[in-house]
Amino acid sequence: MASILPASNTSMRSDRNTYVGKSFVHVKNPYLDSMDEDVLYHLDLGTKTHNLPEMFGDVKFVCVGGSPNRMKAFALFMHKELRLADSEEDIKDICAGTDRYCMYKIGPVLSISHGMGIPSISIMLHELIKLLYHARCSDVTIIRIGTSGGIGIAPGSVVITDEAVDSFFKPRFEQVILDNIVTRSTELDKELAEELFNCSKEISTFPTVIGHTMCTYDFYEGQGRLDGALCSFSREKGLDYLKRAYNAGIRNIEMESTVFAAMCRLCGLKAAVVCVTLLNRLECDQINSPHDVLVEYQKRPQLLISKFIKQRLGLCDQTS
Amino acid sequence: MASILPASNTSMRSDRNTYVGKSFVHVKNPYLDSMDEDVLYHLDLGTKTHNLPEMFGDVKFVCVGGSPNRMKAFALFMHKELRLADSEEDIKDICAGTDRYCMYKIGPVLSISHGMGIPSISIMLHELIKLLYHARCSDVTIIRIGTSGGIGIAPGSVVITDEAVDSFFKPRFEQVILDNIVTRSTELDKELAEELFNCSKEISTFPTVIGHTMCTYDFYEGQGRLDGALCSFSREKGLDYLKRAYNAGIRNIEMESTVFAAMCRLCGLKAAVVCVTLLNRLECDQINSPHDVLVEYQKRPQLLISKFIKQRLGLCDQTS
Repeated sequence: MASILPASNTSMRSDRNTYVGKSFVHVKNPYLDSMDEDVLYHLDLGTKTHNLPEMFGDVKFVCVGGSPNRMKAFALFMHKELRLADSEEDIKDICAGTDRYCMYKIGPVLSISHGMGIPSISIMLHELIKLLYHARCSDVTIIRIGTSGGIGIAPGSVVITDEAVDSFFKPRFEQVILDNIVTRSTELDKELAEELFNCSKEISTFPTVIGHTMCTYDFYEGQGRLDGALCSFSREKGLDYLKRAYNAGIRNIEMESTVFAAMCRLCGLKAAVVCVTLLNRLECDQINSPHDVLVEYQKRPQLLISKFIKQRLGLCDQTS
Repeated sequence: MASILPASNTSMRSDRNTYVGKSFVHVKNPYLDSMDEDVLYHLDLGTKTHNLPEMFGDVKFVCVGGSPNRMKAFALFMHKELRLADSEEDIKDICAGTDRYCMYKIGPVLSISHGMGIPSISIMLHELIKLLYHARCSDVTIIRIGTSGGIGIAPGSVVITDEAVDSFFKPRFEQVILDNIVTRSTELDKELAEELFNCSKEISTFPTVIGHTMCTYDFYEGQGRLDGALCSFSREKGLDYLKRAYNAGIRNIEMESTVFAAMCRLCGLKAAVVCVTLLNRLECDQINSPHDVLVEYQKRPQLLISKFIKQRLGLCDQTS
């Protein structure tokens, strides 16, 4: 289990990544340390304008999700759950100077939105990882709490991802670098997934499963939907694809997990993906459950992650 | 030149796409018309909950851009420019029920945000095109007004895209459909680009050029930046790639143009891409111009498009 003590921001370290007992967030970029200033443009933060170690040095848990409102709701929820001394009004969007992403800090927990799709989360992750590196954060766990389409499981089920796969059911992320394609592993932290799954067993109000998660580049044609502006395949072909996905172990589809897994893995972040399913894609394409049902579904990954964080922090939980 | 008269929402038509003299927005999906209801989930609109022809039937210009704040600013700017009778306070976010996108309507002009990257704009376009189809819109011009990195041109220059190309400098968009890859043309409307370029000649306050636009899947490694969390190539290799792009006719890089061109083309929307460049990538990677300079740059495409729309609407322009 990772240490939950705040990182010492003043200690001198000869090597950021081998400091005894601590696993520091690292970058894989030989040019970064020689830069006079690093402007994290899409977060509206920077190394000269902000004291990043002071602001973020004690971060141990980073939770990311697509929707800004949902990540604000999660921040407010965590504030309540961690029973922190400061007032709810003190929880301000740290990235208020930009509308690309929003970010809230609640004690050792950072809650950040990433928009929809691989490119959008990738920009956020580059700048988040640099932020954690500049802030000298160590032993950071990062969890994507998202929404997804389920395959063969009841709507409202939560899926903990054991393997993030692409449209071809392969556990890989293809990164275009200049005009080359580099294939990266999308392996997630197995122990973390197990720990989260054990945590979920204590929650009786919704089902949680472990399974593969498919990550696509769009919501309609790439996910076999018949209700987009474009659809060139038959109902049978679409259903056959989803059934093949199910048989390959895939239990849900979303749009960020492969690049999330690949980048976190390369930079020393223990990562997990926990998404609720809003519908069962073997039954329908449209998300048309009542608004209050969808809102309740979206709270489920938050509840699980809150429980997990409190366990890690050694806080007693008598509420569920 | 397209008709600017409002579409008749009550006329009966036997064929949406061949009605004399009008070019209707169409979908390429044989299943859509048989659906009892179409929920445009990410726009928080639907065919049963909203009267789409009444709300949107007169739309002739759709302007899209990544940032919600920028698209709200554009809506307020157009409201001023078109001198519409209603008050500025009446301009409300039509998609206020969701935080995925925002949308404003100013007379015949729709202003919508699309987030960052191909997947994010693709979801919005599927639902926007269905909206325009359900609303029986005709003769619609769609323009992406965005920000970009320039190649070999002064920061602040505006680029009108003549061809949207991928990371390999090819005018194509590769769409994954189920587990197949389908290559689509990214051809944009040449006459529209010319019309916009002619319009720009009347603006003396900033330079506008016509050139190819490269569309990438990320902001850092895919665009040859040395300042991401990950960088595996040398400074020389990165610069060589950008120079080869320049020699291939590319004048700016952004993250949405190929799928935008491909989808609009397939659905009968005359499309253009007009982006300002925030920096010259042959000189630097970081966007670190002062805030007020960047804000002024971002107004430039808006100024050009406002001029274009007013010309199309036959409104006199004495202001520039």
